[in-house]
Amino acid sequence: MRPAEITCSGLAAIRSSKPMIHHITNTVVMNFTANVTLCLGAAPVMAPCIEESPEMVRFAGALLLNIGTLYPDLVKSMLSAGRVANELGIPVIFDPVGAGATRLRTDSAKMITRELEIAIIRGNAGEVLALSGADGKVRGVDSMDSVEGRIGLLSSFAADSGSVIAVTGAVDTVTDGNRTARIENGHSLMGMVTGTGCSASTSVACFAAAMEDPFHAALGGLAALGIAGEHAAGVCDGPGTFVPCFLDALSSLNSETIESRIRAEILS
Amino acid sequence: MRPAEITCSGLAAIRSSKPMIHHITNTVVMNFTANVTLCLGAAPVMAPCIEESPEMVRFAGALLLNIGTLYPDLVKSMLSAGRVANELGIPVIFDPVGAGATRLRTDSAKMITRELEIAIIRGNAGEVLALSGADGKVRGVDSMDSVEGRIGLLSSFAADSGSVIAVTGAVDTVTDGNRTARIENGHSLMGMVTGTGCSASTSVACFAAAMEDPFHAALGGLAALGIAGEHAAGVCDGPGTFVPCFLDALSSLNSETIESRIRAEILS
Amino acid sequence: MRPAEITCSGLAAIRSSKPMIHHITNTVVMNFTANVTLCLGAAPVMAPCIEESPEMVRFAGALLLNIGTLYPDLVKSMLSAGRVANELGIPVIFDPVGAGATRLRTDSAKMITRELEIAIIRGNAGEVLALSGADGKVRGVDSMDSVEGRIGLLSSFAADSGSVIAVTGAVDTVTDGNRTARIENGHSLMGMVTGTGCSASTSVACFAAAMEDPFHAALGGLAALGIAGEHAAGVCDGPGTFVPCFLDALSSLNSETIESRIRAEILS
Repeated sequence: MRPAEITCSGLAAIRSSKPMIHHITNTVVMNFTANVTLCLGAAPVMAPCIEESPEMVRFAGALLLNIGTLYPDLVKSMLSAGRVANELGIPVIFDPVGAGATRLRTDSAKMITRELEIAIIRGNAGEVLALSGADGKVRGVDSMDSVEGRIGLLSSFAADSGSVIAVTGAVDTVTDGNRTARIENGHSLMGMVTGTGCSASTSVACFAAAMEDPFHAALGGLAALGIAGEHAAGVCDGPGTFVPCFLDALSSLNSETIESRIRAEILS
Repeated sequence: MRPAEITCSGLAAIRSSKPMIHHITNTVVMNFTANVTLCLGAAPVMAPCIEESPEMVRFAGALLLNIGTLYPDLVKSMLSAGRVANELGIPVIFDPVGAGATRLRTDSAKMITRELEIAIIRGNAGEVLALSGADGKVRGVDSMDSVEGRIGLLSSFAADSGSVIAVTGAVDTVTDGNRTARIENGHSLMGMVTGTGCSASTSVACFAAAMEDPFHAALGGLAALGIAGEHAAGVCDGPGTFVPCFLDALSSLNSETIESRIRAEILS
Repeated sequence: MRPAEITCSGLAAIRSSKPMIHHITNTVVMNFTANVTLCLGAAPVMAPCIEESPEMVRFAGALLLNIGTLYPDLVKSMLSAGRVANELGIPVIFDPVGAGATRLRTDSAKMITRELEIAIIRGNAGEVLALSGADGKVRGVDSMDSVEGRIGLLSSFAADSGSVIAVTGAVDTVTDGNRTARIENGHSLMGMVTGTGCSASTSVACFAAAMEDPFHAALGGLAALGIAGEHAAGVCDGPGTFVPCFLDALSSLNSETIESRIRAEILS
């Protein structure tokens, strides 16, 4: 399938199946990513505590783990919910926000990827490199190092971890170790709004809940997000008005817009 | 009084008395519902921890308890603050987000309604049915089952619990066991935005802080919210731009708009 | 330097150095103040838990402590991160949200100011008066008592505490005990939006990360925020649309706008 077909069919599948996406995520972006989920056509649930997260995940089409404002008990809840998701074949998407910046983040991220089967890891270059064990200089949560020339490294990490690796930046790279895709959609304004990276993970989780192939889900989720971001950047007046315009663009995304705007290719 | 008169007098009372509304609520909607409170003319306070919530509630005109992102210590804080509110005659409004979805939610919701005197319970059909002990199928936090034909059940639950029951959906139903009202305001876009249900509870809490009769408060709070939602839906471009337009509409709500737009009736 | 020069040079310094601002802050405003940080040109990080906050602060240009939704463990994390910041000479900005309203808030605020070297305290009149030990009546978190006639008291508090004191309201006052400034920018709509006070603290923290003199940082941060707020108030339709317009205005703030709009003077 062409990238446009993958993205269109994923979006249609989300809208028809309306999967619940269980987020165990950070307190900065909860409202925004809940709205991203709804605008894509899925239903958000956010049940962070360990006393209910493993039970809540049973209703979910995907489980998103995001360590943006982590604490040790939250990581335990992530592991507990993640094990249930693994048992039930519910895809787990992991966003290692800030991995590499502190020992707690790096260790927690490594523990999560070691103890759980992660369908898709979505992060920026620094986070993914820190998680892979390669050197990664992380400047806060906004590092956007180029991934040019690192496809080999990401591909090895995907093969070793068994996860699809989705690295976002000016150009996004998705690889499962065998197949690699580039997505060039998106807009620089997205780097001036908190939670656009987290939203990319949410979008990928929505697609993963509705599509069998996690490589396709990562590609489709990032393409959809980038296309909506470009559209919003064209109609807003700055990073503040970008947010409502972006949510509108996600909710009105359709096949025509995807076909005409997508700039993605599957390299191998 | 006619529903329009109830809503207008409640709104005027909020704006003149500017009550503080203490929220112990979920982390997804805090910012949004704080802004809803301000736009209605009241003052939000959010002090979740048990070390201060019982003390903070002493300044409040109403206490709103919302279990959207609950954990056991938060439920203890709710009970502790709720007991002080009960002693002081401060109305307690309860939003049983997701009751029926997990054991923790259902048990916590039942404990809160058993141990506290709740002036008004505001939820969707599934949540209220789960809480009432009747069967309720809850699909995440967005279930919007029809309540047609369930007025008898809600009326019994109101009479048994001593609480006004406010069930929101395409049509809202409010009952105190004796009197029942229907409110048909609102717009389908509200189902595409996270926290509109929580905002309905906040609106009801603001009205309850300014009006003696909790049945009137529930009716007025839901009508005001629905009217503002309709207005916003008419001027926005989608679920993203809906949010700022909705807050603008709440802050500019006046008697003329209420009289011309309200679609509510008291059935008995 | 004139106030306009201070504000322009501070903003230019933020945009060129792009400092990381570590927030340990409340869950109501996290998303909004993260976006304020980005729109000013700095990079937000929010790492609340004690297991990483002292480590994260090492990368920061400033540390902002805000007790809006405090709990005892969060105060411990603030103290731990604050001590590291003090050792490394990283300026600590403190927002004593609601000090005076509950014993926990007042005691925690006093402990933070006693145990840490605070570069700048930013609050409303009631909060700062409660913290200074003077009488302050706090009505929730929105008290905006006049500070006319209190410059003497604030000046003494600044001299005693060694902190720059920045009190916001209809008119803002900044003093370090020797120098005092008045800033008259801002708009009444800002009182109808949750988190504008917290945003003022964030703005001050961004300026403090980029300027040597904390008196200049407080002046510049408040002037920039007030000017953006005035601009937004002129183009929005109410408190809902104010928020995205305000963020746009912050991101497009430039020397021309500052020079033409600033209404600030250094009194002594």
